[in-house]
Amino acid sequence: MKNYIQENKDRFFQELFSLLRIPSVSAKPEHKQDMYRCAERLVELLKEAGADQAGVYETAGHPVVFGHKDIGAPQTVLVYGHYDVQPPEPLEKWRTDPFEPVIAKDPATGEEAIYARGANDDKGQLFMHMKAFEFLLRSGKLRHNVKFIFEGEEEIGSPSLPAWVKEHKKLLKSDVILVSDTTMISDKVPSLNCGMRGLAYLEVKVTGPNKDLHSGHYGGAVANPINELCALIASLHHKNGRVAIPGFYDDVVRLGKKDREMLNRAPFDLQEYKEFLDIADVKGEKGYTTIERTAIRPCLDVCGIWGGYTGTGAKTVLPSVAYAKVSMRLVPWQSSEKITKLFQEHLQRIAPPYVKVEVTPFEGGDGFLIPMSSPAYKAASRAMSEVYGKEPVPARGGGSIAILADMQRILGIDPLLMGFGLERDTIHSPNESYLLRQLFAGMESIALFYQYY
Amino acid sequence: MKNYIQENKDRFFQELFSLLRIPSVSAKPEHKQDMYRCAERLVELLKEAGADQAGVYETAGHPVVFGHKDIGAPQTVLVYGHYDVQPPEPLEKWRTDPFEPVIAKDPATGEEAIYARGANDDKGQLFMHMKAFEFLLRSGKLRHNVKFIFEGEEEIGSPSLPAWVKEHKKLLKSDVILVSDTTMISDKVPSLNCGMRGLAYLEVKVTGPNKDLHSGHYGGAVANPINELCALIASLHHKNGRVAIPGFYDDVVRLGKKDREMLNRAPFDLQEYKEFLDIADVKGEKGYTTIERTAIRPCLDVCGIWGGYTGTGAKTVLPSVAYAKVSMRLVPWQSSEKITKLFQEHLQRIAPPYVKVEVTPFEGGDGFLIPMSSPAYKAASRAMSEVYGKEPVPARGGGSIAILADMQRILGIDPLLMGFGLERDTIHSPNESYLLRQLFAGMESIALFYQYY
Repeated sequence: MKNYIQENKDRFFQELFSLLRIPSVSAKPEHKQDMYRCAERLVELLKEAGADQAGVYETAGHPVVFGHKDIGAPQTVLVYGHYDVQPPEPLEKWRTDPFEPVIAKDPATGEEAIYARGANDDKGQLFMHMKAFEFLLRSGKLRHNVKFIFEGEEEIGSPSLPAWVKEHKKLLKSDVILVSDTTMISDKVPSLNCGMRGLAYLEVKVTGPNKDLHSGHYGGAVANPINELCALIASLHHKNGRVAIPGFYDDVVRLGKKDREMLNRAPFDLQEYKEFLDIADVKGEKGYTTIERTAIRPCLDVCGIWGGYTGTGAKTVLPSVAYAKVSMRLVPWQSSEKITKLFQEHLQRIAPPYVKVEVTPFEGGDGFLIPMSSPAYKAASRAMSEVYGKEPVPARGGGSIAILADMQRILGIDPLLMGFGLERDTIHSPNESYLLRQLFAGMESIALFYQYY
Repeated sequence: MKNYIQENKDRFFQELFSLLRIPSVSAKPEHKQDMYRCAERLVELLKEAGADQAGVYETAGHPVVFGHKDIGAPQTVLVYGHYDVQPPEPLEKWRTDPFEPVIAKDPATGEEAIYARGANDDKGQLFMHMKAFEFLLRSGKLRHNVKFIFEGEEEIGSPSLPAWVKEHKKLLKSDVILVSDTTMISDKVPSLNCGMRGLAYLEVKVTGPNKDLHSGHYGGAVANPINELCALIASLHHKNGRVAIPGFYDDVVRLGKKDREMLNRAPFDLQEYKEFLDIADVKGEKGYTTIERTAIRPCLDVCGIWGGYTGTGAKTVLPSVAYAKVSMRLVPWQSSEKITKLFQEHLQRIAPPYVKVEVTPFEGGDGFLIPMSSPAYKAASRAMSEVYGKEPVPARGGGSIAILADMQRILGIDPLLMGFGLERDTIHSPNESYLLRQLFAGMESIALFYQYY
């Protein structure tokens, strides 16, 4: 594969860039047409790579791309990826246009990387699979049937995909779901995912008076929805860092001492971590390490808050409404649906009588675990060992790919997560990028996975 | 004056509308030129009304308009007003263009009013003074020298005016500062202001990690600046509604039983108040009535908050920064400067080690009292009694006109606040308006004030 990459590098960049140029932001209705453009471009690329059959499939939301190469092999690999991306905001923090990809040197390390929204998550990572497949097919080394499913709603919680998967169970029949949509521990420490967190996501709206008021005429006598919202949010954590919603921890699996020890064996430098983020200290649930806090413990974060006057200068106003977006990362076996309900009930219970509190749930998803004893995990481990020169560490991912738990349940097959992202890629943030080195190492690892699986 | 209004009504509207059409938003740098346009239009109107001398004066910020009519009388009235307005946002809540004034019926009462940003605050109210002056001059009834000072920075705390006033003490020499920039208790209960609250205004910035993070990879391990900001804000009030900043109440005058009784004699219907605002209950400092809470007690309100993702949909992010704008209304003899310092010190003291907290103060101002025994207060009371058919109730205003305490101190003259706004005018909010009835009653009251002073 190494030689094939060298020979086809420029074409690879052209193809990937053509995907990155399409602003397929699933969260924003104004990008509806871009979703179709991106899906159609993927179909072209799949066909060019050698898929017999590839097409755009309608769903209740953004379309799904499905492609297939049947060589009559006994085993079938189902490659999952998503072509939608996070909104690029805040735009002013990007050094280059988020939808005009460039290859540039990392300001810190000097290594070359592709800078664009989706460079890694997940256009860059799904692209590796198309090219590894193309290489195997053209070099006569393909030993498995390969199916591709690329969805356009991962970043908004895959609301339409479960129904589509249920309707197309036969089409999707396969032996493993292969996914590259996660990170490795570090560029020196390759790792393989053995579990992901789930997600519950809700928007809270607090309404005070029916109009914005003069803060002089009413201040001190009328409850301010921003102050009330802040009090509600502050009350959602205990002092020990635990989430203060009754029942929140009921279904959290408590790991044994041995499992926790193994988890903490993954290399981690707290000082480096703090320096990378420029924080004086970490903060989280008492009694757990940083690795544990993001892997085996659930958490609650406000992802956005707004209300009142947010422009320049000093406008005095007692606003009518305030909003917050709250995400909760869940661990197996917390149910996203149950946690969503607990949150809604709790907010209504603690809502003060002076304001109205409305809670709107968004799509979430459950966490899941990946069996490390499976043939797929073993093949992936061997492939990565060869490419990186060391065995990948098993690690639990803190993020969520809601749909994978659903697909695991509906199709009855386990996912395998070979992720090649790095912390430095700052996915979901300005200046998202993907190291060329990791892009190519990913392609090589995937090609070898097929060889050993 | 009544007949004069009837004969000149259409011209009055044309003149006032020409002011309202200029978007003189002092808080926004992009309106710098509009401030000059508005100041120059005021100079024209002052000259047309009969001022001998009127001009635009530069300050460190937006310009001041000063005009003068010297008839050699023993006494001089200094009329203060401001031509700047609050930002019109949120624009989508306006029924008509905020800077294209219209006369329309109040949807609730059917009474005619002018709808525009500044219709009342303060273009509409300062306009009454120019027209009362014009009438007195043209009808040969003017018995005082009149000076006008209209500033362009009231809504941002008048940062440049104190220095300008200090430099022009001689020019401004007079016997009373006459101001219409406040409200009456209700259209059935005329009132005269006998005090205003002061203001301290600060922006709080909480910085967590040095970049926006993936809330899955970091959530639970890294302090979230929005959650931290909410906790800080929530901690600023005690459960009894008192502000929890040490020293905050040190200089608050505690009124005697009699004074409080008199204050509460002002007509107030709690049920109507709650219905007007569509709230289930009021909220404020324990042990005080709603009237007291907005008149003689200080308070703390968040006027704006923002951070993270605030667009549509469900973006998962652990943001780097969160902001809040905090206003504190102060009572005599709390010092705005001292409270600003207490707030800054308190925030630094309670800032958790996981985040950086920066506090930026904006311009504030002290509260003040108006002596009810003064000849000016008595003349105003008599004038309003005649126009409204009942004696105006003395009332303490909850709002702040920061500059008046400064002018009182620098020039050594007391202000007199004849305000004709009503709660229904929703100043600082969408669909600001000013009843024609109040506009004309204001002109009549002011003309009579000059007669009785």
